[in-house]
Amino acid sequence: MIPRYSRPEMVAVWEPATKFRIWYEIEAHACDAQAELGVIPKENAEAVWKARDVPFDVARIDEIEAVTKHDVIAFLTHLAEIIGHEEARFVHQGMTSSDVLDTTLNVQLVRAADILLADMDALLDALKRRAYEHKMDVRIGRSHGIHAEPVTMGLTFARFYAEMDRNRDRLRAARAEIATGAISGAVGTFANIDPAVEAHVCDRMGLTPEPISTQVIPRDRHAMFFATLGVIASSIENIAIEIRHMQRTEVLEAEEFFSKGQKGSSAMPHKRNPVLTENLTGLARLVRMAVIPAMENVALWHERDISHSSVERMIGPDATVTLDFALARLTGVIDKLVIYPDNMLANMNKFRGLVHSQRVLLALTQAGVSREDAYRLVQRNAMKVWDDGKDFREELLADADVTAALSPAEIEEKFDLGYHTKHVDTIFSRVFGD
Amino acid sequence: MIPRYSRPEMVAVWEPATKFRIWYEIEAHACDAQAELGVIPKENAEAVWKARDVPFDVARIDEIEAVTKHDVIAFLTHLAEIIGHEEARFVHQGMTSSDVLDTTLNVQLVRAADILLADMDALLDALKRRAYEHKMDVRIGRSHGIHAEPVTMGLTFARFYAEMDRNRDRLRAARAEIATGAISGAVGTFANIDPAVEAHVCDRMGLTPEPISTQVIPRDRHAMFFATLGVIASSIENIAIEIRHMQRTEVLEAEEFFSKGQKGSSAMPHKRNPVLTENLTGLARLVRMAVIPAMENVALWHERDISHSSVERMIGPDATVTLDFALARLTGVIDKLVIYPDNMLANMNKFRGLVHSQRVLLALTQAGVSREDAYRLVQRNAMKVWDDGKDFREELLADADVTAALSPAEIEEKFDLGYHTKHVDTIFSRVFGD
Amino acid sequence: MIPRYSRPEMVAVWEPATKFRIWYEIEAHACDAQAELGVIPKENAEAVWKARDVPFDVARIDEIEAVTKHDVIAFLTHLAEIIGHEEARFVHQGMTSSDVLDTTLNVQLVRAADILLADMDALLDALKRRAYEHKMDVRIGRSHGIHAEPVTMGLTFARFYAEMDRNRDRLRAARAEIATGAISGAVGTFANIDPAVEAHVCDRMGLTPEPISTQVIPRDRHAMFFATLGVIASSIENIAIEIRHMQRTEVLEAEEFFSKGQKGSSAMPHKRNPVLTENLTGLARLVRMAVIPAMENVALWHERDISHSSVERMIGPDATVTLDFALARLTGVIDKLVIYPDNMLANMNKFRGLVHSQRVLLALTQAGVSREDAYRLVQRNAMKVWDDGKDFREELLADADVTAALSPAEIEEKFDLGYHTKHVDTIFSRVFGD
Amino acid sequence: MIPRYSRPEMVAVWEPATKFRIWYEIEAHACDAQAELGVIPKENAEAVWKARDVPFDVARIDEIEAVTKHDVIAFLTHLAEIIGHEEARFVHQGMTSSDVLDTTLNVQLVRAADILLADMDALLDALKRRAYEHKMDVRIGRSHGIHAEPVTMGLTFARFYAEMDRNRDRLRAARAEIATGAISGAVGTFANIDPAVEAHVCDRMGLTPEPISTQVIPRDRHAMFFATLGVIASSIENIAIEIRHMQRTEVLEAEEFFSKGQKGSSAMPHKRNPVLTENLTGLARLVRMAVIPAMENVALWHERDISHSSVERMIGPDATVTLDFALARLTGVIDKLVIYPDNMLANMNKFRGLVHSQRVLLALTQAGVSREDAYRLVQRNAMKVWDDGKDFREELLADADVTAALSPAEIEEKFDLGYHTKHVDTIFSRVFGD
Repeated sequence: MIPRYSRPEMVAVWEPATKFRIWYEIEAHACDAQAELGVIPKENAEAVWKARDVPFDVARIDEIEAVTKHDVIAFLTHLAEIIGHEEARFVHQGMTSSDVLDTTLNVQLVRAADILLADMDALLDALKRRAYEHKMDVRIGRSHGIHAEPVTMGLTFARFYAEMDRNRDRLRAARAEIATGAISGAVGTFANIDPAVEAHVCDRMGLTPEPISTQVIPRDRHAMFFATLGVIASSIENIAIEIRHMQRTEVLEAEEFFSKGQKGSSAMPHKRNPVLTENLTGLARLVRMAVIPAMENVALWHERDISHSSVERMIGPDATVTLDFALARLTGVIDKLVIYPDNMLANMNKFRGLVHSQRVLLALTQAGVSREDAYRLVQRNAMKVWDDGKDFREELLADADVTAALSPAEIEEKFDLGYHTKHVDTIFSRVFGD
Repeated sequence: MIPRYSRPEMVAVWEPATKFRIWYEIEAHACDAQAELGVIPKENAEAVWKARDVPFDVARIDEIEAVTKHDVIAFLTHLAEIIGHEEARFVHQGMTSSDVLDTTLNVQLVRAADILLADMDALLDALKRRAYEHKMDVRIGRSHGIHAEPVTMGLTFARFYAEMDRNRDRLRAARAEIATGAISGAVGTFANIDPAVEAHVCDRMGLTPEPISTQVIPRDRHAMFFATLGVIASSIENIAIEIRHMQRTEVLEAEEFFSKGQKGSSAMPHKRNPVLTENLTGLARLVRMAVIPAMENVALWHERDISHSSVERMIGPDATVTLDFALARLTGVIDKLVIYPDNMLANMNKFRGLVHSQRVLLALTQAGVSREDAYRLVQRNAMKVWDDGKDFREELLADADVTAALSPAEIEEKFDLGYHTKHVDTIFSRVFGD
Repeated sequence: MIPRYSRPEMVAVWEPATKFRIWYEIEAHACDAQAELGVIPKENAEAVWKARDVPFDVARIDEIEAVTKHDVIAFLTHLAEIIGHEEARFVHQGMTSSDVLDTTLNVQLVRAADILLADMDALLDALKRRAYEHKMDVRIGRSHGIHAEPVTMGLTFARFYAEMDRNRDRLRAARAEIATGAISGAVGTFANIDPAVEAHVCDRMGLTPEPISTQVIPRDRHAMFFATLGVIASSIENIAIEIRHMQRTEVLEAEEFFSKGQKGSSAMPHKRNPVLTENLTGLARLVRMAVIPAMENVALWHERDISHSSVERMIGPDATVTLDFALARLTGVIDKLVIYPDNMLANMNKFRGLVHSQRVLLALTQAGVSREDAYRLVQRNAMKVWDDGKDFREELLADADVTAALSPAEIEEKFDLGYHTKHVDTIFSRVFGD
Repeated sequence: MIPRYSRPEMVAVWEPATKFRIWYEIEAHACDAQAELGVIPKENAEAVWKARDVPFDVARIDEIEAVTKHDVIAFLTHLAEIIGHEEARFVHQGMTSSDVLDTTLNVQLVRAADILLADMDALLDALKRRAYEHKMDVRIGRSHGIHAEPVTMGLTFARFYAEMDRNRDRLRAARAEIATGAISGAVGTFANIDPAVEAHVCDRMGLTPEPISTQVIPRDRHAMFFATLGVIASSIENIAIEIRHMQRTEVLEAEEFFSKGQKGSSAMPHKRNPVLTENLTGLARLVRMAVIPAMENVALWHERDISHSSVERMIGPDATVTLDFALARLTGVIDKLVIYPDNMLANMNKFRGLVHSQRVLLALTQAGVSREDAYRLVQRNAMKVWDDGKDFREELLADADVTAALSPAEIEEKFDLGYHTKHVDTIFSRVFGD
């Protein structure tokens, strides 16, 4: 996590103060349940809530940990300093540190997922708005970076919308994956703590009980969570690459918004570089790099080893903070992207009429020309455009073999752009459902 | 894909003959729809079905491709050789090669997913059977590879069941991700082909239409699919590592089945090595290595580039074939795993009674001893067991500070194994739902 | 490994027949050394060489392995069938299977490296030739996909040369990494076999003895080898991306060679797609995906576990075969790449004179204008070119604040292309050393 | 980078203050060279050195960057504030931001490499010391986690030494990879700056000039650097896994040093967990995750895009800081590792004499028994030990078929441990060269 690519709300999820507050809530709710079961005195459970509005002293906890070399014990000691050592003596009873740590991690991941879901909503709004705005603005579709047939800028946004909408669904599923808690004791047998405590704590923390835990919550859940972030990041890269292409000097169909005061290169003042989407390309790599370590974390030894912990201390904050930042940055880019419809048309007409070759080919075969002959007819005229800069329509009209099969009016009709946009409404309806 | 780690059913999914058959079905169904729309003559559509039971000549198609350097054209030429060039002239009309290729890939991935789902069902059956078989067989739970508190072998199988059950759900979702088809023409606009064709083909092929495609089906779907395989592979590694640990010479709580004729090392005849689970550990890495390339495939240029194709030619078969083999191998391992309950007990009693220290600690605090004092009391007796091989129970009974708080009967009770297994039924009910 | 992306010489390295032949050579050389030491009779050692020119029957070995379930034993049995069971009885004495298997793998990797080094020599030749051919052909340099200042096409090839030359050095180092052998017995102690055997075998096989092996040769060597292949693949991607950009419809500064008979898209005959370099982009991902599994292979348990084996069975052939194919394909692309110098110039002049803005900026500051003022002066004229299509030089000549600092002749001089190419010779000399 | 896994010296390499100081030195040296060339006045070059001992105000630079949105301009503005705007006007002349940024990154990576090399020296010292200390302490070698034949604890340390020694060589090579600098102007042509400036700056900064740069230094160098860190991390994992195995309750041949005051689990006071080596296992994953993004960074568009930048801002510090911490932690673990030779012997004798089966097998064949018969003889006696807890030597002495081939004295001799350690000196000499 680096400040430059961080936003405060997500950063806050991972701050020590947040972590200790969640630890506290888990311990306090557990005491309530234990008291309800008659395991500990009700007054001790109630006493824990005295710390409800008392901020924890993170520096003090660190100080204690430096001695005990155990973070949860350090926290519990500090908690006892606040609510009284006598009152605090039943806190954490029957629990193991991992009950607190793992349940807390999942609470943090759930909160992170909620922020990311909100980010995606904003991104989807922006994509949808721009899609409708440029719904019928024709631009050339490209395969292999080579002009193919016309599409519209609205379709470009619409497909990014559909892709991100799938990602939102995936993220919802990933959120469900890690919305579990476990208060099951040292090796997950509930030997020292009744399952009712887990049920109560999970209910209060917005989680469901992990059906079977060991000392830890199984890490396949986390692997799936980070894998999902990796897919979302890859979609961000997909959109970023498209914008970078659109902004190329030779293409210039769109441009990242360039504020008046902003300086580009120190040496070349005319340059407006797609630095935000280039940055997003890099950020996508950063989010994606969490995927494999998260998968390597799954195979813990027996009822647990702690190899996963350092990995999660890093990738938990880093992947979510970076993805949050990236989604927000992308939303800003989409929202303010400057679109150049004139350049879109100019690019499409670069090879005069050649984009319509597919239609002509089809028309020829439908007019009874064999596939091979039609291909040859189209190709020989197309090459004149390509090599000599001729106009495709004029060449076709002058080709006796072509006009033997198609009338001039029929040929003219093949150059109508409306032909290509006639199903845009259909597609929009499929994507946006309205 | 290497023969040693392949099973025929999955291999067949990826054979050229299978691919051509799917191509054929797509083309034939598309002709039906085109005829229904009146775009092509009904007799031409019907003629295509003449090849329904004619095996394609893969060598002949390769021969044509060597000339045309285009696989779909080669196939269509061969199809025309079968059904007649005149009859075949409307086949593929309005379609682009990717309509066929991408829809076919998804059909193959769906079939692969179905095989994998069946594999998982078999694995789940084996895990469940072994879980109930050893439901109450006590073994020591271990955290950090160090003895902690008792669990049962049944719980070990049950948690693998729960993990694989989640993986089955994930795989179902991944199957849905790639169960789409697209017959949308050159750049996905349906300019040259009516959406009704896509609807018909998808319906017949067991797919749903891709809401918005370009020339290709968006690759975030495939990324999610392979990411899911990566998570499943990581769970296989998790189980494999547990079994490898159990089979260690010093542990020997379980052993891969070792058939009579099988030779281990050429030099050390007494060795029975966990080679299957070691192999599974490696296979997990192989499946997982498809994840990042699949994610790198998402960001295609504009309406498509073909960089994804070579990646998918490799990881499509490799990841699914390897995972199929791994799941089947793991099922065999689980099914026949030799369990040694006596060794499990012997291991648990290695440090005489020390596994019950947590209970004693709890009992002391509940008897009014402060947490810090209780910890000290337990620790000083535990260290005698650890360092000097003493018996924990006897040491406790001889410790005046301990007996001041707990009666001998209370101390005895802390060494009852039933205490640790009392919630096994609860957990089984949560996992198996019965 | 898939046939489409394979070349026979590299495939042969990984064929069973090759593997068995290397096994044989190792066993035969080991027998020689054992006889020299007096451990086994000389006539038995000599007898082994009877199989020198006898092809092994791979099917027969497989048949035996199906019974023994042990590949080395199967091979030794087959060898005994050829040279006589009595004569063969000392073969493999004191050795462990891994002595043969690991030494063989390294022989194969060394041979693979040699093929790859030859591939790189051919690629370097092509790059150098094209670099000199287009040494002074000016094209626009681009940062962020945006026009910056002039470079030459020769410099583009020269930097790819320099990068691949570094890769050749890396591959040489990687070859040295895995050019070791081990004949050290069951756990690497030489308890059952004299180190002199290892020394002799390694000498004959072109290897150096592994200083300390366990049952296996340490896998950090292989990790480094595959990591190096991953870097080379990334450089291939780098070149491929540049060519794909150059071939874009809007740029068209270069094009993959398009043979006369070759058909592009089935629907759009005018399209010449950079399918080879797109393919190379995908192949790079495939080679790279071997890196992480190879690193995961390093941490074997104790003196060995066999988890690495399945991984290497896959990535050994796949990564080397794919990289060999990719290097050869890239060499072909470079060799025949069609360069369009006219388009290069046309692109550079797209924004009339703006590429020279950096020079003007510098001239202004050197003429005493403050950095900030100079920046402003250049920017205001540049924006007229960008926004209104004006000619940069003319605007500058008409700007009184500019001409107050620079004379018309001085301004003219800033538009001389020779200024940008004056150090091309220097750079070529640094790269090519001649 | 997280404080818990960071050490100050390496953190300092990546602090803004360090970065700005390096920027400054590059700019100042560049001015010297420009003055020497007569491009700028000598007094301006000299004036820059006025800031030599003036700490830069990082907050002030940030403040300026918030306005200019350009970090190098912000720095230059701040520098001008220190040395005077008039005096500063020639600073950075002819250079592009990347000249400074890329050369600085490489200076930082070189410094990081130097710290890592010192770390490795310390680790190698510890490994060597422990190797000699336990050179002849016999323990059982294990393949597949199963007892094989005896090795010594010294050999275990020696092989880790040899592996880390290779890693030191690799790191030296990786350091050389990134010890280059580039002051080549906007697109690397030296159009605006003489190569002599680059030569001077590189000389002063301990770098060599990059033979051909574009706007940036080519990223294959960095890919190789991070790949090398990934290999080193994998070796750390290798050592960590061995120690974790040795510390298992059932094995306990070694233990991480456990200081008196340190608390283990809050609930199970007897547990001494290998938490440091488990942590190292996780840290290895973290270092390794930088490898793929670094390789994805190689393929920049044309003369540069900035996608690599965010990646390097993260992995530059993270991978080096984490690896530095991991190497130091591992050194501490090795240095203080508690070794239990008695347990080593006890483990070896778990299956009474069975570890000597290989020797017996060999002796039988040397005594004229056929390989198959010898195997059978050894196996049938071995199985009695395995299944019934018999003593292998006694069983052999009682087996008439065995004693028909070997005398009792010959059998006894096969159980001599010295047989297995006779080449330890040889191996040590190969590893340590003394």
